[in-house]
Amino acid sequence: MFEAIKTPYLAETNGSFSAAQFSTNPPKDGPDKKQRESELQTSIEELKELQRRLYASNSYSVLLIFQAMDAAGKDSTIRAVMTGINPAGCQVYSFKKPSEEEIDHDFLWRTAKCLPERGRIGIFNRSYYEEVLVVKVHPEILGSQRLPFDAKGSNIWLQRYESICDHELHLARNGTVILKFWLNVSKEEQKQRFLKRLREPEKNWKFAAADMHERKLWDRYMLAYEEAVRATSKPWAPWYVIPADSKSYMRMQVADTIVHSLKSLGLEYPEVDQKLAAKFSDIERVLESE
Amino acid sequence: MFEAIKTPYLAETNGSFSAAQFSTNPPKDGPDKKQRESELQTSIEELKELQRRLYASNSYSVLLIFQAMDAAGKDSTIRAVMTGINPAGCQVYSFKKPSEEEIDHDFLWRTAKCLPERGRIGIFNRSYYEEVLVVKVHPEILGSQRLPFDAKGSNIWLQRYESICDHELHLARNGTVILKFWLNVSKEEQKQRFLKRLREPEKNWKFAAADMHERKLWDRYMLAYEEAVRATSKPWAPWYVIPADSKSYMRMQVADTIVHSLKSLGLEYPEVDQKLAAKFSDIERVLESE
Repeated sequence: MFEAIKTPYLAETNGSFSAAQFSTNPPKDGPDKKQRESELQTSIEELKELQRRLYASNSYSVLLIFQAMDAAGKDSTIRAVMTGINPAGCQVYSFKKPSEEEIDHDFLWRTAKCLPERGRIGIFNRSYYEEVLVVKVHPEILGSQRLPFDAKGSNIWLQRYESICDHELHLARNGTVILKFWLNVSKEEQKQRFLKRLREPEKNWKFAAADMHERKLWDRYMLAYEEAVRATSKPWAPWYVIPADSKSYMRMQVADTIVHSLKSLGLEYPEVDQKLAAKFSDIERVLESE
Repeated sequence: MFEAIKTPYLAETNGSFSAAQFSTNPPKDGPDKKQRESELQTSIEELKELQRRLYASNSYSVLLIFQAMDAAGKDSTIRAVMTGINPAGCQVYSFKKPSEEEIDHDFLWRTAKCLPERGRIGIFNRSYYEEVLVVKVHPEILGSQRLPFDAKGSNIWLQRYESICDHELHLARNGTVILKFWLNVSKEEQKQRFLKRLREPEKNWKFAAADMHERKLWDRYMLAYEEAVRATSKPWAPWYVIPADSKSYMRMQVADTIVHSLKSLGLEYPEVDQKLAAKFSDIERVLESE
């Protein structure tokens, strides 16, 4: 079974994670912007080749989960890191407010339908983790989820963490490599990015009034993230808490983590079936004599 | 409604298409390989920007259908042309032998579930056209499709063309831009590519013994392609018959056709909602005074 690679941003997988230990800023003695961009390009080239092997070997699948506060850079990171990839081997799903049909099922149903096939990289831009993030910050949402019992007084969050862990363990046991990224942006940096969206006309369309409302609940969100990561960071489904105040550093780290994780699988091109290989020279002769 | 752009490879949309008029080779006075690759790169850059606008404007969707004989280069063309694209706005589906569940539905059901959402580019690597190509060449397949009547003596192919045309007209009327590419490879070039797969160990895994069997039915396939393209090339859902004996020329032409088709839509970034825009300076003040 896949086992998490260690980086400075791996959230402890023994339940001891504390968000305070993880900075939103890159290290001061780290690579400069130009070096970061060059390292990102190197990783993208490696990723291209790893994806070809993943696809050809058709056994593992890869699930990348991105969670973050608004304006942390989920969309732009997915674009920057994955744009070099052959789209035939990569599927991106964005999960927004659940539909009526989705609410009519358990909270893992809608994402389970979108899990990547063997050989493919699936990307979840938001995921079932919303059920222990936004729903935990707004517990009134539970009331609209048609649960047949009163969930509010119960251990619903612990039960949801458990469901998620069980689900991910099942997937890992069956060949899915799960990497989870919390793009960890600071409240101050979010403010600067919101101001940009308000001030630059070509960014206006990205601004939604509801974003300001969620910003007011910042501390409650941070607590929900911390508790979710603590409960669900596992060796077979690790969380990486990536400093997100610098986009170039964030992208470099995300790409680097994916590349090293895939390298650890030792992916190879499949060998051709021996029986078929034995017939190759016969087939060559048939073709040549046409 | 979208209307096909004219290129030398547009199959007539009035039912007069004849495959004999379309070469499998690039024109002799065309660009050389280096120029083709440079033109492809230019198109990919344009496509990146067009895709961002398509996504932001969230109204049209784009469906690209690729059909071809084995080894014509469907996979590698999709990779070469679409790899620059943000995978969040692009979904590739490969349709192989239908599953039991798929056979239990009409022949448009399985692909309909995979149609691109507004704002996205969907790519079908093979499609419902297999139902009038491989199934027409192997009519015995009809017997396994559980149709409740004897289809063989009837007008089943004309009926299938009609179903396809009706389906595509409906999609076009609702905002789907449909571009269909027949990657038109010659029998001789297929032979050379098969030989490569047999002789180069790292390409061995691409070779399937069944490919040789289908090759023997070449002429029947060509007839099926011609009849399908003739019946279903429409101004709102055109077929482009791309010379496929040169991969660099084929890729350049496919990319160029997509770019010019998307340009013809006049895609723009959406303007921000006026009511929200009026509040922007208030929101700015709130943020600044935090």
